[in-house]
Amino acid sequence: MLLHEDRLFPADPVTRNIARTLYDQIKHLPLICPHGHTDPVWFAQNTPFQDATELLLKPDHYVLRMLVSQGVTLDQLGLPRSDGGLSETDNRKIWHIFAQHYDAFLGTPSRLWLDHTFQNLFQLELPLSSQTADRYFDTITEVLQTDAYRPRALYDRFGIEIIATTDAATDTLTHHKAIMDSAWPGRVLPTYRPDAITDPDYDGFSRNLHSLAELTGEDTLTWSGYLAAHRARRAVFIQHGATATDHSHPTAATANLSEGECQALFARIISGEPTPQEKELFRAQMLTEIAGMSVEDGLVMQLHTGVFRNYDTGIFQTFGRDKGFDLPVKAEFVQNLRPLLNRFGHDPRLTLVLFTLDESTYSNELAPLAGVYPCLRLGPAWWFFDSAAGMMRHRELTIETIGFRNTAGFNDDTRALPSIPARHDVARRVDCAYLARLVAEHHLTVDQAVTLAHELTNGLVRKTYNL
Amino acid sequence: MLLHEDRLFPADPVTRNIARTLYDQIKHLPLICPHGHTDPVWFAQNTPFQDATELLLKPDHYVLRMLVSQGVTLDQLGLPRSDGGLSETDNRKIWHIFAQHYDAFLGTPSRLWLDHTFQNLFQLELPLSSQTADRYFDTITEVLQTDAYRPRALYDRFGIEIIATTDAATDTLTHHKAIMDSAWPGRVLPTYRPDAITDPDYDGFSRNLHSLAELTGEDTLTWSGYLAAHRARRAVFIQHGATATDHSHPTAATANLSEGECQALFARIISGEPTPQEKELFRAQMLTEIAGMSVEDGLVMQLHTGVFRNYDTGIFQTFGRDKGFDLPVKAEFVQNLRPLLNRFGHDPRLTLVLFTLDESTYSNELAPLAGVYPCLRLGPAWWFFDSAAGMMRHRELTIETIGFRNTAGFNDDTRALPSIPARHDVARRVDCAYLARLVAEHHLTVDQAVTLAHELTNGLVRKTYNL
Amino acid sequence: MLLHEDRLFPADPVTRNIARTLYDQIKHLPLICPHGHTDPVWFAQNTPFQDATELLLKPDHYVLRMLVSQGVTLDQLGLPRSDGGLSETDNRKIWHIFAQHYDAFLGTPSRLWLDHTFQNLFQLELPLSSQTADRYFDTITEVLQTDAYRPRALYDRFGIEIIATTDAATDTLTHHKAIMDSAWPGRVLPTYRPDAITDPDYDGFSRNLHSLAELTGEDTLTWSGYLAAHRARRAVFIQHGATATDHSHPTAATANLSEGECQALFARIISGEPTPQEKELFRAQMLTEIAGMSVEDGLVMQLHTGVFRNYDTGIFQTFGRDKGFDLPVKAEFVQNLRPLLNRFGHDPRLTLVLFTLDESTYSNELAPLAGVYPCLRLGPAWWFFDSAAGMMRHRELTIETIGFRNTAGFNDDTRALPSIPARHDVARRVDCAYLARLVAEHHLTVDQAVTLAHELTNGLVRKTYNL
Repeated sequence: MLLHEDRLFPADPVTRNIARTLYDQIKHLPLICPHGHTDPVWFAQNTPFQDATELLLKPDHYVLRMLVSQGVTLDQLGLPRSDGGLSETDNRKIWHIFAQHYDAFLGTPSRLWLDHTFQNLFQLELPLSSQTADRYFDTITEVLQTDAYRPRALYDRFGIEIIATTDAATDTLTHHKAIMDSAWPGRVLPTYRPDAITDPDYDGFSRNLHSLAELTGEDTLTWSGYLAAHRARRAVFIQHGATATDHSHPTAATANLSEGECQALFARIISGEPTPQEKELFRAQMLTEIAGMSVEDGLVMQLHTGVFRNYDTGIFQTFGRDKGFDLPVKAEFVQNLRPLLNRFGHDPRLTLVLFTLDESTYSNELAPLAGVYPCLRLGPAWWFFDSAAGMMRHRELTIETIGFRNTAGFNDDTRALPSIPARHDVARRVDCAYLARLVAEHHLTVDQAVTLAHELTNGLVRKTYNL
Repeated sequence: MLLHEDRLFPADPVTRNIARTLYDQIKHLPLICPHGHTDPVWFAQNTPFQDATELLLKPDHYVLRMLVSQGVTLDQLGLPRSDGGLSETDNRKIWHIFAQHYDAFLGTPSRLWLDHTFQNLFQLELPLSSQTADRYFDTITEVLQTDAYRPRALYDRFGIEIIATTDAATDTLTHHKAIMDSAWPGRVLPTYRPDAITDPDYDGFSRNLHSLAELTGEDTLTWSGYLAAHRARRAVFIQHGATATDHSHPTAATANLSEGECQALFARIISGEPTPQEKELFRAQMLTEIAGMSVEDGLVMQLHTGVFRNYDTGIFQTFGRDKGFDLPVKAEFVQNLRPLLNRFGHDPRLTLVLFTLDESTYSNELAPLAGVYPCLRLGPAWWFFDSAAGMMRHRELTIETIGFRNTAGFNDDTRALPSIPARHDVARRVDCAYLARLVAEHHLTVDQAVTLAHELTNGLVRKTYNL
Repeated sequence: MLLHEDRLFPADPVTRNIARTLYDQIKHLPLICPHGHTDPVWFAQNTPFQDATELLLKPDHYVLRMLVSQGVTLDQLGLPRSDGGLSETDNRKIWHIFAQHYDAFLGTPSRLWLDHTFQNLFQLELPLSSQTADRYFDTITEVLQTDAYRPRALYDRFGIEIIATTDAATDTLTHHKAIMDSAWPGRVLPTYRPDAITDPDYDGFSRNLHSLAELTGEDTLTWSGYLAAHRARRAVFIQHGATATDHSHPTAATANLSEGECQALFARIISGEPTPQEKELFRAQMLTEIAGMSVEDGLVMQLHTGVFRNYDTGIFQTFGRDKGFDLPVKAEFVQNLRPLLNRFGHDPRLTLVLFTLDESTYSNELAPLAGVYPCLRLGPAWWFFDSAAGMMRHRELTIETIGFRNTAGFNDDTRALPSIPARHDVARRVDCAYLARLVAEHHLTVDQAVTLAHELTNGLVRKTYNL
C-alpha cells in the first residue's frame, strides 16, 4: 500500500476521529474544478494518452523542477530543444531516471499526488524505484490504451462534475464547441484569459491584437474598438459555458484613469515604444476595465499575481515556457487594489477571487481585504502552497479574519489530469483536519463543522463561480 | 451552552490538563486594561446603554466589516450618513440582519467574544440565529435598563482593576475628573494621544494647534512653544492618572534632527504647504521628541503603526472613520526606529511598547529589537491578530528570541465594553495553552509556567505600564 | 535534573514514541560542524579556559543581548571599553548578575543550550539562580583547569568529527597549520571568508588590499591581480583543508558585468570615493566572481545575508563588533540572485548554500529557488531562528517545496564551544519531531523517516560540504 487511509489527519486520537467523521461525509462529493489547465482537446477527441512518461512526467512542472534540482537536465527528460539539439527520445529510459530520483520527492505534495495516482488509478502498490520502474512503465502504458483510461472515462471515474479550462481570448473554442455538441454529458467550460492582449510584454502582443481584430471585426487599434473586442469575445466564451475570467499579472496594480487618459495610454501602448511604467499602468487599468465588464456580464474575475515567469534565460531560450522556472516575487495588495476597489468594491455584481504566491500577505493584506469588501473572495492556497502544510497555514492565517464565507473553496489549478482526484482529496483531508482541531478545541460544534466541510468542498465553489 | 469550559485548549489530553491547571490559577485575576478605547463618559455619567444593537453591533468595527463583506450595507446597519441620506432606524430590524448572518462569524474571534458576552453577561444559551433574534434583542435590551448593567456595575462585575482610555491631547478630561471626584472607586485613566497635533495629515491639524494654544497659553506656532504645550498637556494628563501615551503613525519612521533643523521643519509644517516628505519627517521627529518627554516625565510610550486609515473613499465620505475600512500596510521597524534608539534606546527612564499589523515583522524585526534594547517591550498581538491562533503565532514567533520579560502582557484595545472579559479570557487561555505545550515538551517546568502565567496576566502589565 | 530526556518531543504519545525511536538511532552520530566561529588557537594551543564567565558569558552575544534588554550594561558585564572607561573586572560578580537574570532566558534556546552544558558538561543539576551562582562559578571554573576540559579534550568528548572555523582571506592559517602538524587527530578546517577584501564598506578595506598584496605577491590594485590574489589565497586554504567559503553581505545582490565593466568598477572602488551604488554593485559582482572560482576549485560557497551590523552607534563605538546589536533587515533573493544563477546556476561544479534572517522568504523565495536550481542548497535555520520552534518552522515552510535532498543539514554557527553538542542535540530532536509528525500522519513510513534522520544529521552535511 502506498497510501494510508488516515493520511494527513492529526495524530491526536480525539482530533483524528473528528477528522475522519467529517471526511467520511464529504469524501465522495463530486469534484468541481472551476480553475485549471487541462487541455480541452482531450475531452473533445478522447484520444488515449501515450505512455507513463508522456502522461505523468513531461507535462508536470513540479516533477521537472525537482528532477532538475537533483542535477538531471531537461534534455535527459526528453523535452524538445528549440535550438535543434537532441533530447532523449526513449520514454522508458526517462521513466527510469525519474524512478531513480523518486525519493527526492519524499515529503512533497508531488509524491502524495503521484502515489495516489499510482495506487488508485493504476493499482500499483510497491513504491516506485529503480527496481519497480519497468513494471510501473509497462502497467501504466498498457492500461492507458484501454477505453477505460481515455480522457472522458477518467473524467467520469474521477467523479468530476464540472471542469474549467483556461483559454486565450483569441481561442476559437472549437474543442469546447465539439464537446457541447457531443452526446457526452461532461461539462468542460472555457475561462477567458486575455493576458496575451492585455499585457504589452506578452510574446506577440501586437500580433495578438491583429488576431483579435480579425476574430471580432473590431478596430482593436482604437481604445473603444479594443474594449468592444473584449466584450465580443467574452460573449462568445459565455455562449460556450464560461462563468469566469482569469488574469496572470506580475503585480496586483490597478488603476482608475479617465476616458481621455485611457485613450492616450492606449495610443502609447500600440504605437512606438511604451515605457515599462506605461506598460504597467496599462495592465493596471485593464484590471479595472475587466472588473467593469464583469459587472456588466457577470463573469467571475480571478487574479493570479506575483510570478516572475521564465526566470532562467537559458532554459527559456532552449526549452520555452512552463518548465518549472517561474518564481514568486514579493506581492502587495492593499495599495495596489485600491483604485479598482474604490470604483467597484461594493458592486454586488462583481466577484473577484484573489490568489497569492507570497504567503506573507495572507494575514495582513488579503484577509483584511477579503474580510470587508463584498466583491472579494480569497482563493485557495496556490501553486507552491497547494500542499498539506501550505493549505493548513492558509486556513490558520486567514479564517479568523474572514470566516469561511469569504473563501472560494478549492481549485486544483492543474494541467495534470490524473492528479485531479489526488489534489481534491488532499484539500478535503486538510480542511477536515483544520475543522477537527476547531471542534476538538471547542471553537466549533461537530454539526457546524459538518456544514462547513460541505461548504468548503462544494457549496462555496458553486456560489463563488456561479456553477 | 454556547461556551465549553475547555475551549481553546489543545486536544492532547496531557497538554490540556496542564493548560487547565495553569488557567485555574489565573482565571480570576483582576483585569488590568492599560490600553483601550472605552468612552470615559460611560463611567462618569453611568447612563444605561440603550439596546442590544447600540451596545453590541453599531460600535464594533469587527462586526460591521464582516456584515459588509456579506453584502450588507452600512445604511442597512443604521449608521448615520453625512450626506443626509436615510439609514435604517429600527434597531430590532438591524439586529435581525445581524442574526441572519451570524454564521458568517464561525471561526472568528468576534463569534467567541459575542458568545462569551451572550452567555456570561446575558445568560443566553441558544445560538443566535434568525429564530432566536427577537429573544436575544428583548433579553439584552431589557436587562440593560437595570442598575446591574450600568457601566460602573459592569466594570465591577468584570473584575476590572484599572482601565485606560485614549484621549486627544486637547481633551479637557472632564469625565476623568468627574470619575476621580466621585465616590466610585473605579480607576479610569486617560492616555495621551496627540496624533491630531503631531500628524500634519490629520483632519483639522491647524485648527488643533490653535485649540492647543488656547488650552495651554503657549504659542504653538513656534517650535519651543509647541513643545512646551505638549509638556503642559502631559502634566495635566499625569494629574488625571495617566501613565502612558499612544501614537498611531502610518509608519514607524523616527528622526533625530538638530534643534535648528527642527525649527526649520516646523516652520514648513505650519506655514504654506509642506511636502509629503516633510510631513513624514515631522511625524518621525515627533516620535523622538515624545520619547524624550517620556524620559523626563515617565509616561510609557506606545506605538501603533502600519494602518492605512479610511481606505475606502466612498465609505469615509459617507460614514466617516472607524467603520472597518482601516487596512494594514507593510511595516518596517529596524531602519525606522534607529534614530530614536540611537538617542534614547539605553535610557532606563524610557519604556516604548511596539505593536504591529504586519506579522511578517514579528520574528525578524520586532523580536530582535525588543530582545536587546532595554527601553523596548513587545506589545501583544494587535487588531486582526487579537485572536486565538493570532496570539499563538505571536508567542511562537517571538518568545524564543525575547523571552517573556520583554513582553507587555495583554491589552484588549477595544471600544466594546462587554467584550473586555471575553478578550482577556481568550488571551489567558491561549497563554496557558502556549505554556502548557512548553511544559508538555519539557521546555519549562509546571512551576515556571505558573509563575509565567501570572506574569503574562498581571505582573508584566503592571510593570510595563507602571500600574 | 535540568533536562528531561523527552524534551522538545511532541506531547501526543504516538508521535512522541516515533520521535524517540528516530532519535535513538541518530543521537550518537558524530558531530559534523561545517560552519562556525570557534577559534583555531584553542585547538592549536590547547590552553585551558579561564573561568565560567570567560567561557560561557562574555563571548556569547545571545546572552549579552538578553542581559542588556533587562537593563544590564556591557560595562557591568566586564566588556572592555575602547574609550578608556572602566568595566567590571570581577568575573564572579558578573556571573552573579547573569544568575540573577537567568529566568529572563526561560523559553529561549539560550537557556536550553546553557542547561544542557551545565548538566552534561559540568554535572550541575540545580537551576542556576542567585542562590546557586557561587556553586556554579566555582564548579565550572575549577573543572576548567583540568586536562579533561581543555579544548582538544572537549572536541573529543563532544564527538566532533570535523569542525570548520571562519577565517579572513588574509589569515595566515598558522593555527590550522599547527593542528595539522600535531599528533592530535582532530580535524579543524579553515573557511575562506573574504568580506574584508570584497566589501568596500568593511573597516580598513584599502589596508586589507595591501595586506593581500603582500601575502600573495599580486598587484591587488588591478582587477586581474586582485582576482589572482583571491585564487592564490583559496589555494592556500584548500591546502589547509578548507572545503568552503563564506560570505556575509548586506543583501543577496549579484551582478554579471563584462570584463571591461568590471575593470572600470574596480578602478572606481580603489581610487577616490565610490558611491554607495558602486560599492553595492562591486559586492554583487564579487559574489558572481566567487561562484566562478568555486566552479574552478570546488570550494562550496555559503551566503549569509540580511544583517545590519553594528546597528547601535554608541555600543559599536564603545564596545566594538558582535555584542548582540546586529539586526536583521528585510531580504530579497529572487531578483537578487538572478545574474549569478543565469551564469552558473546549472553548473554541476557549483554548490551554493543560502541562509536567511528573514523568515518571510522561506516559502516564497528560498524554497522555490532551491527546489529547482541544481547548484542551490538551503542552509539550516540561522541565528535568531536556530531554536526549536524556529527550526520547525523552517522545515514546515520549505520541505514540501524542496524535499530533503535540497537541504544542507545542520550547522551550529557558533563561537561558543560548549554549546556545540547542545545545539546539535536540539536540531536532532526537532528533526525527529518533524519527521515523527510526518510518520504519524502517514506521509512517510518509519523506514523512510529513519533514513531521512540519518541524512539530515550526517549524510546531507557530508554531501553538501564535500566532507
